[in-house]
Amino acid sequence: MRPSGRNVDQMRSISIETNVTKHAEGSCLIKCGDTHVLCTATIDERVPPFMKNSGLGWVTAEYGMLPRATNTRMQREAKKGQSGRTQEIQRLIGRSLRAGVDRVALGERQITIDCDVIQADGGTRCASITGGWVALKLAVNKLMKIGDVISDPLTDPVAAISCGIYAGQEVLDLDYPEDSEAGVDGNFVMTGSGKLIEIQMSAEGSVFSRQQLNGLLDLAQKGVDELVAAQKAATS
Amino acid sequence: MRPSGRNVDQMRSISIETNVTKHAEGSCLIKCGDTHVLCTATIDERVPPFMKNSGLGWVTAEYGMLPRATNTRMQREAKKGQSGRTQEIQRLIGRSLRAGVDRVALGERQITIDCDVIQADGGTRCASITGGWVALKLAVNKLMKIGDVISDPLTDPVAAISCGIYAGQEVLDLDYPEDSEAGVDGNFVMTGSGKLIEIQMSAEGSVFSRQQLNGLLDLAQKGVDELVAAQKAATS
Amino acid sequence: MRPSGRNVDQMRSISIETNVTKHAEGSCLIKCGDTHVLCTATIDERVPPFMKNSGLGWVTAEYGMLPRATNTRMQREAKKGQSGRTQEIQRLIGRSLRAGVDRVALGERQITIDCDVIQADGGTRCASITGGWVALKLAVNKLMKIGDVISDPLTDPVAAISCGIYAGQEVLDLDYPEDSEAGVDGNFVMTGSGKLIEIQMSAEGSVFSRQQLNGLLDLAQKGVDELVAAQKAATS
Amino acid sequence: MRPSGRNVDQMRSISIETNVTKHAEGSCLIKCGDTHVLCTATIDERVPPFMKNSGLGWVTAEYGMLPRATNTRMQREAKKGQSGRTQEIQRLIGRSLRAGVDRVALGERQITIDCDVIQADGGTRCASITGGWVALKLAVNKLMKIGDVISDPLTDPVAAISCGIYAGQEVLDLDYPEDSEAGVDGNFVMTGSGKLIEIQMSAEGSVFSRQQLNGLLDLAQKGVDELVAAQKAATS
Amino acid sequence: MRPSGRNVDQMRSISIETNVTKHAEGSCLIKCGDTHVLCTATIDERVPPFMKNSGLGWVTAEYGMLPRATNTRMQREAKKGQSGRTQEIQRLIGRSLRAGVDRVALGERQITIDCDVIQADGGTRCASITGGWVALKLAVNKLMKIGDVISDPLTDPVAAISCGIYAGQEVLDLDYPEDSEAGVDGNFVMTGSGKLIEIQMSAEGSVFSRQQLNGLLDLAQKGVDELVAAQKAATS
Amino acid sequence: MRPSGRNVDQMRSISIETNVTKHAEGSCLIKCGDTHVLCTATIDERVPPFMKNSGLGWVTAEYGMLPRATNTRMQREAKKGQSGRTQEIQRLIGRSLRAGVDRVALGERQITIDCDVIQADGGTRCASITGGWVALKLAVNKLMKIGDVISDPLTDPVAAISCGIYAGQEVLDLDYPEDSEAGVDGNFVMTGSGKLIEIQMSAEGSVFSRQQLNGLLDLAQKGVDELVAAQKAATS
Repeated sequence: MRPSGRNVDQMRSISIETNVTKHAEGSCLIKCGDTHVLCTATIDERVPPFMKNSGLGWVTAEYGMLPRATNTRMQREAKKGQSGRTQEIQRLIGRSLRAGVDRVALGERQITIDCDVIQADGGTRCASITGGWVALKLAVNKLMKIGDVISDPLTDPVAAISCGIYAGQEVLDLDYPEDSEAGVDGNFVMTGSGKLIEIQMSAEGSVFSRQQLNGLLDLAQKGVDELVAAQKAATS
Repeated sequence: MRPSGRNVDQMRSISIETNVTKHAEGSCLIKCGDTHVLCTATIDERVPPFMKNSGLGWVTAEYGMLPRATNTRMQREAKKGQSGRTQEIQRLIGRSLRAGVDRVALGERQITIDCDVIQADGGTRCASITGGWVALKLAVNKLMKIGDVISDPLTDPVAAISCGIYAGQEVLDLDYPEDSEAGVDGNFVMTGSGKLIEIQMSAEGSVFSRQQLNGLLDLAQKGVDELVAAQKAATS
Repeated sequence: MRPSGRNVDQMRSISIETNVTKHAEGSCLIKCGDTHVLCTATIDERVPPFMKNSGLGWVTAEYGMLPRATNTRMQREAKKGQSGRTQEIQRLIGRSLRAGVDRVALGERQITIDCDVIQADGGTRCASITGGWVALKLAVNKLMKIGDVISDPLTDPVAAISCGIYAGQEVLDLDYPEDSEAGVDGNFVMTGSGKLIEIQMSAEGSVFSRQQLNGLLDLAQKGVDELVAAQKAATS
Repeated sequence: MRPSGRNVDQMRSISIETNVTKHAEGSCLIKCGDTHVLCTATIDERVPPFMKNSGLGWVTAEYGMLPRATNTRMQREAKKGQSGRTQEIQRLIGRSLRAGVDRVALGERQITIDCDVIQADGGTRCASITGGWVALKLAVNKLMKIGDVISDPLTDPVAAISCGIYAGQEVLDLDYPEDSEAGVDGNFVMTGSGKLIEIQMSAEGSVFSRQQLNGLLDLAQKGVDELVAAQKAATS
Repeated sequence: MRPSGRNVDQMRSISIETNVTKHAEGSCLIKCGDTHVLCTATIDERVPPFMKNSGLGWVTAEYGMLPRATNTRMQREAKKGQSGRTQEIQRLIGRSLRAGVDRVALGERQITIDCDVIQADGGTRCASITGGWVALKLAVNKLMKIGDVISDPLTDPVAAISCGIYAGQEVLDLDYPEDSEAGVDGNFVMTGSGKLIEIQMSAEGSVFSRQQLNGLLDLAQKGVDELVAAQKAATS
Repeated sequence: MRPSGRNVDQMRSISIETNVTKHAEGSCLIKCGDTHVLCTATIDERVPPFMKNSGLGWVTAEYGMLPRATNTRMQREAKKGQSGRTQEIQRLIGRSLRAGVDRVALGERQITIDCDVIQADGGTRCASITGGWVALKLAVNKLMKIGDVISDPLTDPVAAISCGIYAGQEVLDLDYPEDSEAGVDGNFVMTGSGKLIEIQMSAEGSVFSRQQLNGLLDLAQKGVDELVAAQKAATS
């Protein structure tokens, strides 16, 4: 039934390669099927002005797509400015990652996560959150190793997956052909211990019931469990 | 327990005044407590280029806040450009309203909903959706009266309400003092017949369980029922 | 002769409702016929850098129009930036109000007047000046009440009215149908005691004589007298 | 009494050198004392979209200042965008010149007047109007010579001069030291036959009476007569 | 003598991996030491307006750097706009590649080369030209295979290398530590047959002689020969 | 053979008029045939933040063209922002001039060179460098006269000339008709003592040999010698 032949509750293959760039304090290339995102973490000992002398750390994110990451070339955002969609996505990534950070334990410093989509096939914002957490973890590990951070501020991983209603059925981990057809789709950000952080469900020209929502939440839980396992393997 | 003294499942008082401006094809001033939003509908017989000759109608929305709608004056967006937050909100309003429109019945024309916040006290995006539907309905009524539209494209109202976890308790219809303290809050867009259109839940420095999500959904359902009653009274 | 049936020296009905928004230090909704402008005053204890430690106060203004304030929807300035016309108008409002302020008496603080046109029917910049003065006066009254300002810096009101040559005749207080036809029109800013502050007369595809200028000045004086009476009633 | 030692009704020396650049259809370098403006006219056989097929011509203007035209270097507008002041000035120049053009006689074409201030010492917008008319006239003469325009659309010259109240006295043709001190100053655009086109009077921290206005109008008339004589000498 | 221990005429190791992204018509990841650039080619059957119906093809290029491609994170250009440096580089890449294209043989279509720096260590513009030619060649091969292009428009490869004067000596293929210290450095774009296309030599706080220029040209020739061999291996 | 009838190694007539504007610390109007550029130097006792307390001076440049400096009117950059070409040119001018400055001798201050093209006929960037050096020299002379600078930081003049291959022949000092036809052209920046500072050679749809490069360098040397003589005459 699905264009890829996957079962309704079957994820695409996941791969997380770490330390892929020599400059960043943490980095990974995450591949969720044909969606490939390069995530880097940059540590800055200065925080934004509004949190100076608060003793709290800050995590923020930026998101971009290479112009030919998609099937049809998109205009370069450096030429026209960031779209509303881009800004919405990078706000989501930052908010999601912060929900899993003990900002007191991190200490007064900022970590910026850059998520750049090298190749897109649906689910880029979810891959960015999942891979972004890995880059963040690696950077924090470096801070702990040199003693700048004492107790681990990242005790519970954060990962994200999309689910939606495609051809009348609830399916896990939409790829682009599904995403462009689905009347209802959602992004679910969760912790390794099964807590919810963010739900973004929307219907374009359609509606959904609470029963369907529950079906999607069950699928999301399954997907996040697999992602968290991959995160743990990559960072241990 | 709530700063306003309201019960956990108590809405703020709702008022919807219609036809408040002489130029727009539909308009209302919606007041949800101290949150006041002016909503206007503009009919344009041309659709955007990408839907020309599709036979389908289009509904889009724009959102703004007067600089002193808030307690502290904000910089005017005309001077600095629309923020990511503004773009995110107006995309949400447009998507939500379109979910309740039969685009074939509307016919190939565009209706633009402008939502301008005159005074803000939390929940401006939800008030914009609820009031925006009223302005849209009034404009469509005008098209039906003159025979440009035959069968009603708006059979099921669309309304939105915020709920969140404040001081450990699930509460309905957050005002600004609650919104700025709540660790978890969400916006729920629903139809008059009880279907879901959009859920946007986020946690800032916190997490939530599926049980809490269910509690918030129950509250949202109660709130939307009251809003839909007010919409019907205003447009009948 | 006039589209509205008014006499050549007859103003539109004036209404000034004060304290219309809960956040601003001063506010009013001024209606000059079908032209409705919301004016708010924001007190900021900091002045712009170039007047720091001068001991002098500053008054500035910003102006905007809701997209559907006009008969045909205009593009939102937050999306395209402020037009030259908007900047010209807000510079005029600020300059006009400052001419009526004793900046020593005001003390080193800034008051920003926001004038947002809710509905337009000609004469929006004049209504903004007249209503802006009311918002300013109310904010200053608040400063005097709490003792931050001792002697009143606003002893002589400032108001503005448009006059022009329509169908060959000098007329007072142009509405939009007149304004769009008049070959010569002008805006006159005056004080309650009959002094001139600003004259902006222009001819589009036409010229005028000194005799005609004098006729327009006589009409403007009559109009400003009526506006000042309304300002005094609203602020006393 | 005046810093320059001039009488109150004495203009600065005027010089208008024509055909100063080889590319433009009309051009002049106008010098009003130490204020030097290069004015060029560009003929374009296409009009703006909104006047297509109207049979009417259009005249528009743009204005700029070289960064070091002033005593203190200003930031280049190409780097930061046109200021509100620049836009206000170029709108004034265009409106003023159009008032002296028979747009039917000009025929459906556009002439753009560029006014670039090479050196500034007060009165740059007035010099731009006066010199702009000369460049326009020379371009129109070229059109008449080749027969593209039959009857002269520029029968009455347009010129502009500033007057103001300096040290309590009405003075003609303010230079920069006067302009920066004057509480009241105005720009008067008139025709060679003595008609008024535009008056822009403003008071910064001051007011003025109708009697003073009349004194300034008398001075302006004297100044414009001298400018028109120089325009006629330059273009005949 | 060189920080890397290389001989003065020794290149960094070169690697060109082709077809690295599934969407683009041609692509490669070029690695010149630690400088890694992803190059993609996009075929568009429409040409820019100014060459419509000319029968000639067009090749253009865009260039970007991921924010953490460098040792210190740079601000994202999507947020602040393309710098002058970025525009200068992408103009160079496009001009260089066009010099090696028979635009009649290519036919009326446009190929856009995107060069995105994944990791930077000096020489990114040269790597972009060398890798860009490979992506271009692969895209053209596709057009030839399907018969849309008959005779090969790319008969002579185009490659680029930097040389400079470091610590008083002429050296080939500057890496970042050398580049940031060199008083004189240049970029040399050449063809496989030894012709010159572009020379950009500049001295910052230094000068150079014609003899030194000749030394650098000799080195550049050697480097380009090696690059062209790698290009041929990758595209055959 | 050349459109102007000049010999292949013949420059256009050069004229450098100094002190042409009363405000700038140094200025000249340089005319290379029909290319006329106004160059001004502005001394600022503050340096950019990144060189504060370095004890070193800084020289920077900005470049602009009046809209009708060219045969066809160009859009004003103040309206659309600086093009990539403009930024590239002003970076070249600044870099070239700095190569001839002893920054220790200049002392911690900044000099900004503004080069504004009044009339263009090819070679505007070269004329800007040559004239820019004269304005810089005059400003430095002023600093030396008042004792703010003790030893001359400008001991060797900097000048620039274009050469190219036109109709198959190497020619000196391209004017616009040649420049727009030449397949290969270059800009050569040199010192009075014959050292090279910058070479920018590019081929549009063409290539060139080392022998041709040598021919152009010989021509450039001849041209720069003549320009340096004119610079010395103008500043002594």
